[in-house]
Amino acid sequence: MTHFGDHQVSIYVNGMFLGQVPDITTDLGALESHAAGVLSPEAMGYVVPSAGSGSTARANVEAFERWRIVPRMLRDHATRDLSTTVLGTSMPAPVVLGPVGVQTLAHPDGELATARAAEALGLTYVHSTQASHSIEQAAEANGSGSRWFQLYWPTDDELAESFLERAKNAGYTTLVVTLDTTMLGWRPRDLDRGFLPFLANEGIANYTTDPVFNRRLEKPAEDDPGAAGIAFASVFPNPGLSWDQLPWVRERWDGPIVLKGIQHVDDARRAVDSGVEGIVVSNHGGRQVDGAIASLDVLPGIVEAVGRRTTVLFDSGVRTGPDVVKALALGAEAVLLGRPYLYGLALAGQAGVEHVLRCLLAELDLTLGNAGYRSHRELTPESLVRG
Amino acid sequence: MTHFGDHQVSIYVNGMFLGQVPDITTDLGALESHAAGVLSPEAMGYVVPSAGSGSTARANVEAFERWRIVPRMLRDHATRDLSTTVLGTSMPAPVVLGPVGVQTLAHPDGELATARAAEALGLTYVHSTQASHSIEQAAEANGSGSRWFQLYWPTDDELAESFLERAKNAGYTTLVVTLDTTMLGWRPRDLDRGFLPFLANEGIANYTTDPVFNRRLEKPAEDDPGAAGIAFASVFPNPGLSWDQLPWVRERWDGPIVLKGIQHVDDARRAVDSGVEGIVVSNHGGRQVDGAIASLDVLPGIVEAVGRRTTVLFDSGVRTGPDVVKALALGAEAVLLGRPYLYGLALAGQAGVEHVLRCLLAELDLTLGNAGYRSHRELTPESLVRG
Amino acid sequence: MTHFGDHQVSIYVNGMFLGQVPDITTDLGALESHAAGVLSPEAMGYVVPSAGSGSTARANVEAFERWRIVPRMLRDHATRDLSTTVLGTSMPAPVVLGPVGVQTLAHPDGELATARAAEALGLTYVHSTQASHSIEQAAEANGSGSRWFQLYWPTDDELAESFLERAKNAGYTTLVVTLDTTMLGWRPRDLDRGFLPFLANEGIANYTTDPVFNRRLEKPAEDDPGAAGIAFASVFPNPGLSWDQLPWVRERWDGPIVLKGIQHVDDARRAVDSGVEGIVVSNHGGRQVDGAIASLDVLPGIVEAVGRRTTVLFDSGVRTGPDVVKALALGAEAVLLGRPYLYGLALAGQAGVEHVLRCLLAELDLTLGNAGYRSHRELTPESLVRG
Amino acid sequence: MTHFGDHQVSIYVNGMFLGQVPDITTDLGALESHAAGVLSPEAMGYVVPSAGSGSTARANVEAFERWRIVPRMLRDHATRDLSTTVLGTSMPAPVVLGPVGVQTLAHPDGELATARAAEALGLTYVHSTQASHSIEQAAEANGSGSRWFQLYWPTDDELAESFLERAKNAGYTTLVVTLDTTMLGWRPRDLDRGFLPFLANEGIANYTTDPVFNRRLEKPAEDDPGAAGIAFASVFPNPGLSWDQLPWVRERWDGPIVLKGIQHVDDARRAVDSGVEGIVVSNHGGRQVDGAIASLDVLPGIVEAVGRRTTVLFDSGVRTGPDVVKALALGAEAVLLGRPYLYGLALAGQAGVEHVLRCLLAELDLTLGNAGYRSHRELTPESLVRG
Repeated sequence: MTHFGDHQVSIYVNGMFLGQVPDITTDLGALESHAAGVLSPEAMGYVVPSAGSGSTARANVEAFERWRIVPRMLRDHATRDLSTTVLGTSMPAPVVLGPVGVQTLAHPDGELATARAAEALGLTYVHSTQASHSIEQAAEANGSGSRWFQLYWPTDDELAESFLERAKNAGYTTLVVTLDTTMLGWRPRDLDRGFLPFLANEGIANYTTDPVFNRRLEKPAEDDPGAAGIAFASVFPNPGLSWDQLPWVRERWDGPIVLKGIQHVDDARRAVDSGVEGIVVSNHGGRQVDGAIASLDVLPGIVEAVGRRTTVLFDSGVRTGPDVVKALALGAEAVLLGRPYLYGLALAGQAGVEHVLRCLLAELDLTLGNAGYRSHRELTPESLVRG
Repeated sequence: MTHFGDHQVSIYVNGMFLGQVPDITTDLGALESHAAGVLSPEAMGYVVPSAGSGSTARANVEAFERWRIVPRMLRDHATRDLSTTVLGTSMPAPVVLGPVGVQTLAHPDGELATARAAEALGLTYVHSTQASHSIEQAAEANGSGSRWFQLYWPTDDELAESFLERAKNAGYTTLVVTLDTTMLGWRPRDLDRGFLPFLANEGIANYTTDPVFNRRLEKPAEDDPGAAGIAFASVFPNPGLSWDQLPWVRERWDGPIVLKGIQHVDDARRAVDSGVEGIVVSNHGGRQVDGAIASLDVLPGIVEAVGRRTTVLFDSGVRTGPDVVKALALGAEAVLLGRPYLYGLALAGQAGVEHVLRCLLAELDLTLGNAGYRSHRELTPESLVRG
Repeated sequence: MTHFGDHQVSIYVNGMFLGQVPDITTDLGALESHAAGVLSPEAMGYVVPSAGSGSTARANVEAFERWRIVPRMLRDHATRDLSTTVLGTSMPAPVVLGPVGVQTLAHPDGELATARAAEALGLTYVHSTQASHSIEQAAEANGSGSRWFQLYWPTDDELAESFLERAKNAGYTTLVVTLDTTMLGWRPRDLDRGFLPFLANEGIANYTTDPVFNRRLEKPAEDDPGAAGIAFASVFPNPGLSWDQLPWVRERWDGPIVLKGIQHVDDARRAVDSGVEGIVVSNHGGRQVDGAIASLDVLPGIVEAVGRRTTVLFDSGVRTGPDVVKALALGAEAVLLGRPYLYGLALAGQAGVEHVLRCLLAELDLTLGNAGYRSHRELTPESLVRG
Repeated sequence: MTHFGDHQVSIYVNGMFLGQVPDITTDLGALESHAAGVLSPEAMGYVVPSAGSGSTARANVEAFERWRIVPRMLRDHATRDLSTTVLGTSMPAPVVLGPVGVQTLAHPDGELATARAAEALGLTYVHSTQASHSIEQAAEANGSGSRWFQLYWPTDDELAESFLERAKNAGYTTLVVTLDTTMLGWRPRDLDRGFLPFLANEGIANYTTDPVFNRRLEKPAEDDPGAAGIAFASVFPNPGLSWDQLPWVRERWDGPIVLKGIQHVDDARRAVDSGVEGIVVSNHGGRQVDGAIASLDVLPGIVEAVGRRTTVLFDSGVRTGPDVVKALALGAEAVLLGRPYLYGLALAGQAGVEHVLRCLLAELDLTLGNAGYRSHRELTPESLVRG
């Protein structure tokens, strides 16, 4: 029997179905179409789509199909242990609630629901710079849970420093610096609607609650939302960001730093040489560079190059328990989830997030066990074959 | 002319169509959609689906497409012989009715219809531990037919022993031990419906007719079905099963033992070393580990490793006569069928099972003959090319 | 300007469209769906489908997609010559109207319309043993055209001899012996309908007009069609056919002999060694062994093995002008068409056959010219790349 | 911030969406279906389709999917420069409005709208010999813009000379000689409709305004449109064109000459040896030889063979910004667009062309920047991996 920090998971004990689940599908691959039934077009437009023609988002998912698990038999997997410690954060399973912005588009409770669900399950919550609730509100919702902070590095140094300071004070232990979004990708679903939530003052709660940011405004943000949006837009794009600036953030953050968006072996090496504690192999779920290589396709090479010297995390394309198994077998220490829990949030708020996570953890546990593993730590590239 | 133990097969003599067939399609690939029209959602939910997102179930079928038969000409195939002997059981063709549980979901006659159809055609029937009719009832229906017993090894040793004893007494000659289902896979179609037949006292006939099992209950199973389901659920999952336990079953079963669910060359070697008589290369039709490799993709390597030392059987993805040819050419001595005959059962009970089997045998016979073979024994990997 | 023996082809002069075409599409890939609108279900069931699940029929078409033409520029293709001589038969283009049985299913005029269309365009007509019109009727319709005879070798030697004698007398110059249909393949579309045209006395005109065949009947065929069908069914399947019997036919046919249905290099070599003049690389359009390799996939190996020693023809999967270019580039001396002209026949009788052939020849001519060739004789495997 | 010669592009500054776009989608992959809603069947029939069954048109697009961009991080791409000089023509980005004939089928303003849009954005306009507006009209509309002239080399030398003279006088600086259309390809969409615009006097404005052409007519073109169409049809097909004729055009054109339609390495080498300044690797968007290899698939080999000795341009299959990145990374100096801007023209005339081009340039800019590049000049084959 495997525990994930929540009593309800017992319904999935050893894969035997012993009770009711909320009125949401357990078919993780079908969540998107279910969520589409409840989300507004604007929300679906922002939440679901990828950049351009969706080529990279599709590639992300298809890449998982090409790796196949080879189950092993009769290896006594009665006692399974999925717990792990990543960058000093202990987790019941190597699954992290990755940073997703503007979660109020999916559900009024937004990041608060997600932060609460994470705490309930003992999983780590990553707060996005583009959240609809502030660093402090999310921390309060997350309570005694573990939480990391994701930074979109603005061009305003003082503002960046303020974000880091606030995150530290609010109990965020690890800093995830996103590298791949110095400019928003070309997202036709948003552009066609003329809708960018930030300009409507949604998804910039961290800014409008920030003393440095507010000092830049003529009037308080609540009195002139439009002005806040424009001020945000003036500091967000940071295409000048370079490796030279990493020491600046290193000096201002005591905890572990993770660079998110690494897709090339040379960048992985440079990241390690720069002294950060980890990287996230990610193409932002196909939301930035359309036409980019599938994130999973670059994972093995990067793990081979730097896996022994740093913590390699992974996201982009993870939808199901077997997906997690594959990413871990190819060398990731943990995966970050995005869309799946957001669909759960859209469908039922905190309960929906918990449901999706419990399903994914249960499927992960069953897949590992039925494939003959007692722990994800036993997985190696030899656990898979290229189909 | 080829016989399959039944007068009606003459309608397919030498591929010439000479009479009426029952009102069921002869297009074996279309059976699933036909069956979907008559089965209840619950039944379809249990019968048809695979684990997770169906990735492995699809892979099983697609794997067959990649191997292509190269027909040979002018080789006099007037006299064809598909008969064979597998583990001491003689068969008119290397096709076995594999173990499928809870067949009453497909048709009220359940396993009785299947056992009768098997006898009528001279094919071997494999009785599932999860059957809706008992070991003894199925044996009686099967009459003078040949039958094997499939074991889901429960955690209750005395119960396991009782199953084996009963199967022996009822004329089952070979024991098929399923290794890949120590815990049920993640099956969203069932989970979404909150439906597991066993908990509704369906598919546990072997248990409720068992003296050992009944001794564990406070009241007889018929008086308290719910309690029987719970008692079943407490002994079914057996994730602690290991190679060390094989001698236990060896001591309790005189006939041949086959290990079902082998997917890795090392497990195949270990199975042979453990002294069993055969293995079934199988991923349980994609119903256990979603994301697992296609069963056919691991067959050649396993045959190369142990094919000369043991009997290698195959299932997962077999739908048509050419599929059988391909699996045999790649080294399987016989294939086990599942879904195809179950669709026949759903459509017309015993007559439906017979119809599907006759179609499959006729297509197998025609495919072999038109490809220039007089017997499946002439097939080798060189009969195929990788497309 | 290129001529194909017919004045109407001038409408496609040099690819410039100068007039009206009959009310049939010029999109050769769309003909099947157009024909489906006019054919009866029985006719569609017999004409269109392939064996089994259609795997080989699909593979035939997909195989063409994997070879890509590399056009060459500025090579002066003003004067193009597609004419050729195959086995002593001169043709305006290397395209033959392959043998197709029971053409009355597609159109009341059946083979007569096809034979007339062939003559009108100067192309060679191949008369099927299973035709709905007799050897003599088709020859009369074909007039001064060139014609070959296709033999389904019956088990009745005297009947076979009579067929050959009649074909010789009626001006058929080449004998095409089909090897791949000693038993009809498993064709669910026919079986489901309980329909085999021959048993309804359709498609056995060569038999019912044959003195030897009629001598076997108690009553003349027209008085007892059912008996004729049964008599046919008793001589048609010939699974005992072997290489040893080839001398028998060689002794009885003075002209060139072509073996149709070769798919393996060793069979191609043996065919050449047996003294026949040619082979047709073919899998019968996927109508016999479902699961068989695509016909085009075996062509290069066979051409390499025997191309210099014999005439290699090709069919199975040819739908368009570029398909012809690819088969010729891979070494076929000519291609046999089947379904495309039959769709034309279904849509408009003789005019439909002519239309389809003119379209295909025009597209062939334009493709060759625009790819830089003046003659199909300049094509080599280097004209293509594997995509 | 990146400029493309137009104030409105500022709405896409750094990928941040700051204003309204016209009522046309920004999803470049969806333009075709949008345009289909406004174009007449005849127009769609001519504008959209490719030759034959569309095999090459599909292959062109699929070829782009197989190459994947590998984004690089933290490389300071704040200042990006997409400007370039191709054959002496300076451009704000390596994107050219390729030659497309009969643009009045898409919109009444036809080439005038396109020429104006090109000027507005500073991009180069290529005028087609088959335009619906004359060389001089398009030049006037293009104003101070940069323009090239595309030649379909007629069989009438005096006419060809007149075209070149007029183009020179009207300020066209580079000559693009199309090699791949000495005969129109087999285009079923046109043939089925019996519609070829030129015969309806549409798309032959360059001819009917030409003194040499008019001298050949008995009456002025406007008085007898049919006769003009026939006269055009008599000089257009030029299948006798050969390498020997290149010096003729070289003597009559002082500026750079580019040969369009190169698909084979040997033809690329010969083109360079013949003394022209550049080539366009192109299969005419799949409109000429159906079954031809994807244009992108031949680009790397051609660049390797002649890339250092000549200017290699590319078209066929470019739909999006990432497509441009891939073609440039594989060695093209610039790409020619066709269908995308024509869809914009169909949807909103000049404004539509501008919209599509701005979207494509913005997506190109964002893709380059987010992939870590400051200029397309930094792209190399190592910027991609083969997926």
